[in-house]
Parts: sequence; C-alpha cells; structure tokens
Amino acid sequence: MHTKPTTATSGMSRRGMLGLAGAGIVGAGIGVAGDRVAVAAVGTGSSGASASYPFYGPHQSGIVTAAQDRLHFASFDVGDIDRGELIELLRDWTLAAARMTEGLGAGPSGAVDGAYDAPPDDTGEALDLTASGLTITFGFGATLFTGTDGRDRFGIAGRRPLELIDLPHFAGDALVPTQSDGDLCIQACSDDPQVAVHAIRNLSRIAFGRAGIRWSQLGFGRTSSTTRAQVTPRNLFGFKDGTANVKAEDAGQVREHVFVPEGDSQAWIAGGSYLVARKIRMTIETWDRASLREQESVIGRDKGEGAPLSGGTEFTAVDLDKVGAGGFPVIDRAAHVRLAHPDHNAGALLLRRGYNFVDGNDDLGRLNAGLFFLCFQRDPRSQFVPVQSSLAANDAMNEYIRHVGSAIFAVPPGATAGGFVGERLFA
Amino acid sequence: MHTKPTTATSGMSRRGMLGLAGAGIVGAGIGVAGDRVAVAAVGTGSSGASASYPFYGPHQSGIVTAAQDRLHFASFDVGDIDRGELIELLRDWTLAAARMTEGLGAGPSGAVDGAYDAPPDDTGEALDLTASGLTITFGFGATLFTGTDGRDRFGIAGRRPLELIDLPHFAGDALVPTQSDGDLCIQACSDDPQVAVHAIRNLSRIAFGRAGIRWSQLGFGRTSSTTRAQVTPRNLFGFKDGTANVKAEDAGQVREHVFVPEGDSQAWIAGGSYLVARKIRMTIETWDRASLREQESVIGRDKGEGAPLSGGTEFTAVDLDKVGAGGFPVIDRAAHVRLAHPDHNAGALLLRRGYNFVDGNDDLGRLNAGLFFLCFQRDPRSQFVPVQSSLAANDAMNEYIRHVGSAIFAVPPGATAGGFVGERLFA
Repeated sequence: MHTKPTTATSGMSRRGMLGLAGAGIVGAGIGVAGDRVAVAAVGTGSSGASASYPFYGPHQSGIVTAAQDRLHFASFDVGDIDRGELIELLRDWTLAAARMTEGLGAGPSGAVDGAYDAPPDDTGEALDLTASGLTITFGFGATLFTGTDGRDRFGIAGRRPLELIDLPHFAGDALVPTQSDGDLCIQACSDDPQVAVHAIRNLSRIAFGRAGIRWSQLGFGRTSSTTRAQVTPRNLFGFKDGTANVKAEDAGQVREHVFVPEGDSQAWIAGGSYLVARKIRMTIETWDRASLREQESVIGRDKGEGAPLSGGTEFTAVDLDKVGAGGFPVIDRAAHVRLAHPDHNAGALLLRRGYNFVDGNDDLGRLNAGLFFLCFQRDPRSQFVPVQSSLAANDAMNEYIRHVGSAIFAVPPGATAGGFVGERLFA
Repeated sequence: MHTKPTTATSGMSRRGMLGLAGAGIVGAGIGVAGDRVAVAAVGTGSSGASASYPFYGPHQSGIVTAAQDRLHFASFDVGDIDRGELIELLRDWTLAAARMTEGLGAGPSGAVDGAYDAPPDDTGEALDLTASGLTITFGFGATLFTGTDGRDRFGIAGRRPLELIDLPHFAGDALVPTQSDGDLCIQACSDDPQVAVHAIRNLSRIAFGRAGIRWSQLGFGRTSSTTRAQVTPRNLFGFKDGTANVKAEDAGQVREHVFVPEGDSQAWIAGGSYLVARKIRMTIETWDRASLREQESVIGRDKGEGAPLSGGTEFTAVDLDKVGAGGFPVIDRAAHVRLAHPDHNAGALLLRRGYNFVDGNDDLGRLNAGLFFLCFQRDPRSQFVPVQSSLAANDAMNEYIRHVGSAIFAVPPGATAGGFVGERLFA
C-alpha cells in the first residue's frame, strides 16, 4: 500500500548515517563531537556520555568497569530448546551485545536500513544516542545446569561449578519467587538509561521463542564506585555507599576477590566471576522518621561526610575497637559498617555494583524503593554468604530493610571475537 | 547511647558545606565548578547538570522549561484534613520545593545539621548533587474541589474551573483506577533521576498524615522537546517524538495554547494551565515484529530521520493531501501524524512533556513499557479531548498501545516568594 518515501535522506545509506551517529559525530545534544573514548574493559576513569567499552576480552566488561550511572537488569528462563539452540542463542546475544556496546544497532541492518517488508533488526530508540558507556554482562544460573526438575537439558550438569551454590536461607529473607533466580541473566549498565533499556529490550527480542524474561529491574542511581576516580554516591538511606568497595586500580584485590583463577572447580569459568543479586526493599518512610543519631548509629558512619564514627574523613579506616563515653564502642556492635567489615568476616571482600530503585508505590502510598544490590566475587561461599549471614543475624539496618529478591549467577569469562560468551562451558 | 562523632568536619557547619555543594562548587564528579546557571523559568536553551530554575514566578516552572531528561511524577489523595490544614500543606510544599529547586535540602537544617535526636528534615540522597535542572510543578485534581463523594471539603467547590472537566471515556480506554486520578499532583523533572526521586520522596514525607501517594510514575527518557535548541528524542516505538511540539520560543503559541489568560472561567488560575497525564502501555513485542513499512505507515514519518512520509526532512511541514502510487494518500488515512495534526483537530495544539517508562515486566515476560504522556494546555475541552477522540477512534497506532492510566489537573500559576502555590484559589 505504501511506497518507500522519497525523503531527502532516503537516497543515502542510513547505515552510514548511523555509523556516524555511533561514532559520536552526531551527538545527543551533548555538544561534543568526535571525542568518543575507547578504554579498556578494566576502566580506571569515570565513564562519560561518550565512553565505549569493548565487549570482547579476557573478562566480561561491566564488572570492574567504572560503575555507570544507570542499570537495566533482566533474568531469563529458557524455553523448550536443546543444547544447539542454547548455543545459537548465546551466539546471537554475543553478536548483538558486541554491536550495541559499540553504539551500533542490535543487528547489521539496524532499525531503518533493512528490508522494508521485514521487522527492523533493531528497535530504534537508541538510534541517535552514543554508546554511553554501555556494558552487557551475561550470567548463568544454577537452573541452566540442572533445570528446576533436575534434568540435564543441555548436557552441562556436570560442569556446574561448586562455587555456584544454591544460596542458603538468611534470617529475615522475604523472597518473592517472581523476583528471584533464573536460568540466565543480563546486566546492562550505561550512563544513559535509554541505552540500557534498549539493550535489554533487543536482547529479549532476539531471544523470542527461546528464552523469556523472568524478572527485570531498572536502577536509576549507582550506589557504588568501582574506581578511585569516581565520587562515592548515596543510597536511598541518604548515606554514601561503597566507600570501602574493591576498586579496579587495586589489581591485587581484584585478582584475589573478584575473578576466578585457573584451578578452581571448573576450568571453563577461569577469568569469570560470580554475581549475587539481592533486591532489598527499604522501608524508607520508617527510616525517614528515625533520628539522625539513630541513622548514623545504624550505619556506623556520619551522614554528611561518610566518615566512620570512629573519626577521620570518608576514606579513613574504620576503627572497630574505639571506645567512647560510658565504655561503649563508638561504632555500635550492630552497626552495618562493623558487620560488613572484612575484619568481621575473615577478610571477605565483595565488588559491589548496586543501584537505587523506585518501582512506583504500594497500595498504602509508600514508595516501593530500595537498593538493588549486585556484587561480584571469586567464591560466594567465602564472600557473600558469610557477610550476608553476619548482616542477616545482627545488622541494626534490618529494621529498615527487607530482602525480597535473590539470585546467583556464574559469570563466564569474556568472549573472543568470532566466539560467544560462555563458549568454554560447551567446549 | 552515642555521642556526636568527632570527625574532622563535625566542627564546621555542614550547612555551610552543603551550601557550597548546592552552588556547584562540589560537583557530582562532573568536573565542572562554579558554572551553575540560573535561567528564567521560561528557558530556551537545553538544560544541563548544573542548570537551576527558579521556583517562584508568574508561571510554574516545568511547563515551558526545556524538558529535562528524567521524571518522577506522583498523584496524591488528601486525608481527613480541613481547609486550613490543606493550605498549610501547600505552604510547606512551596517552601520545600523552592529550596530543592535551588539545590538545597528540603528543610532549613537539612539532612545532617539539625537536632541530633530528631529525624533529619531532608532525606539526604541528593546531598552531593546539584540542582540538576529540577522543576517541581503542582496541580489540583477535580476531586480536590468536590471530593469523590461530592462534598465541598475545602470550601472551593464553587471555584472549580469549567475547563477542569472529567475526561470522557475514549474508545479503547483500559484505565486502571489505581493508576488514575488524584486530588493533587506533583511533577518533578530533573536531569538527574536521583534529584527527581529525592524531591517526590521529601514532599511525600512532608505530607505524612495529610496526603499520601495514590500512584506514581518514573520516566527515564523524555519524549518531547520544548525548546528549539533541544534535539528531538525517541519514544519506545523507536521513532522521534515531539517534532511538532509547541516550543517555548513561540511566544504566540505559548500564549494561545498553553497558559490560561485572564478572563477564563476562574480568575485564580490565570497564568496557570491544565495538565493531562495518560499512562500508555505499548505492546512493544508486537510492534517489534511489525515490518518497517507498517511502522512508518502507522506513524506517518520515516524512522531514521523523522521526516513526514510526504517528503522533506524532520521539520518539513506534513503534507496530508499528497497522493502517491495507486491514488492512495502518501500519509495513511489512519496515520498517527495525520490524526494528531492541528489541521485535523480545528487547530488544537498541546505542549507535550512525556517520558518513556519501563516498569519491570508482566507475568508473561513482556516488558511493562510505554509512554507516560503529559501535556499542558489552556483548555482541555478544545485541545486534549478532540485530539484524543480523533486518535482513539481511528489511529492505526491503537493496535500497539493501551491507555491504562488517566488524570487531569488544574495547574495554578506560579507562587510568589512569601506566598504559596495555589494561593489565589483560597483568597
């Protein structure tokens, strides 16, 4: 019924135009041209609107990459597909993810340059936007290996790492199944939320008929820094968060606490990591009626500066032994900073990468808000589990939070160009 | 149990520190200092991280203000309060809103500088952030005037403007009561989502016991430009949106179509406007499987450039009469651009200020996504209603959307310093 319109631009290659857009020549009103910066996946600077991180490499990006401002995270369940079809899905996801992190469309003919009578192979809402620091990080849930019925659907049951445990029940857990678990996950981080949403949407579209979203989460404000150059952000308790996080510059800590070394339980995941996601609802209306004294006592830091209550400034080491008036410890025995501290947990450290969220409001008019906690580690058994056990049992903060979602994923190492993410699992 | 900690900073005024932060001296990692720009509420440039818009003035800001990137919108129902208490709430909201748009905390002693044994009068999560172009815009729903039971709770039933109609049922409406209507509304727009969320949260906290959130909506990507300097953004159909919007620079159009003149049905709202909000769910999975030809035919513009299918480039006037091959109109009879066009609606124009949203996913794994449509106008009876009637009846886009939320509010003129928003309604 319609002919291709004869606009002034229809004679030239839209793909060419988009190439320019992707390269930052046509910016999104930023007023900066041609300064798109390619940095290593192990970024050390703060990211910006024009940052671009390579998808291929020894590690997946989105782990030690300078934490971007916005998040769209999705957990998927695979449908009734076989091993070959799962591999095909991972191949398709890899190609699309590599393109999108470069600021291109999800597929080679994009949103506007393909066959006119076929659906576009990109949905288009990021057409005029740069890469915006996009990283796309894939993970494999325990149920991918064994299925919820214990069946070895993909012939990989024997390759489930010992470190990919089923998380134990923690005191106070109020987990909602529809916000927990999943066969696969994708973490899309970007400095532009539309770019992160575009990535999840297109990867979901590509998975159609093979895998579907089980649950998803948008995060609007990062709650951790992963590099020294980044300013420490604040969570919805109004406190700085992530001051003592593992930082990308600390090569020793990254090696020791974040990435899986050769020689762990499964060879295929060397260079990978383990991701724990916890959706933590904050009862912010209750928190907001707590005194400043109570708030600072719960956290163990002062609210303005983020300094430990034991003294100093934000980055001063916490002195857990300091005693104040009346012989009481200056940092409360139940303070969050004490119970989460490595000294309290046999040296356990986590690379945190969480985000603030607001999912509208509940029926009582309270904001459905909180922290979507994400952390990466070499071995959850000696890192997330002991830390969370300590917090779940005693943290004074528990009066103001409720864990409603939980998931754990094995994060394979980075893909090589021409290969696909997780390839060694299927080798 | 705890004494005020003796950190290095506790001796100096935190309020002083915060004042510096609010003035942009301490930025949020932007690397720019001291360039905070105060512009008129009727802004004409694109806003930036350091923009600040005055709260007081003849019109409320957030209407013709250059559309910011992020939104948090909340609708409130008032509790069992009387006229005096309602006025007190509006006074409290005015003072807090004026402070927050300057980049300050919601209350004079902020998050960290008040009484140590009292709750802070700001929640703190925006402590280190600049004003970030924040605007806070208040509106009054029909039920504020008459109540859902028709009772004149506040002695203002006789002052309900004729223009503040109950919106009619439109063909295809699938409205959800818990996402519709409300006694009061607050639109918070900012270039930083954390700043917008902080504003709604603190205004909600201030309203505790007097008004509670009925529904709320986060938007992550603006879908309209309101100034000529702004690049036209894209909605989640992947098309440019708002190309033909009323722009702040068109003083004649703004005067004629946006603000209420003296001499309309109620004197108190002169200088104000009427806001219609519609939550429009997009069935994006269906859209994504439509051909490029179908998508462009539905919209009436090409996807890459945003040019009308009748030819030209993005800002070329649409030629609704152009005939193509086979004698059919080049722009389909049911195309969105035709049915929304002023020529099709007795010249009706709207100032659109919508945002893209994703609210997680539904039980079938489909993204719960779409457009949160916001528009301002002088008289909904001759603007939103005829345009939406035309669209609801015939728009080809209806196959891909569903209106699930709806609300209309009278937006009072701007407050004067020392007064409060809506003061003339109670005079």
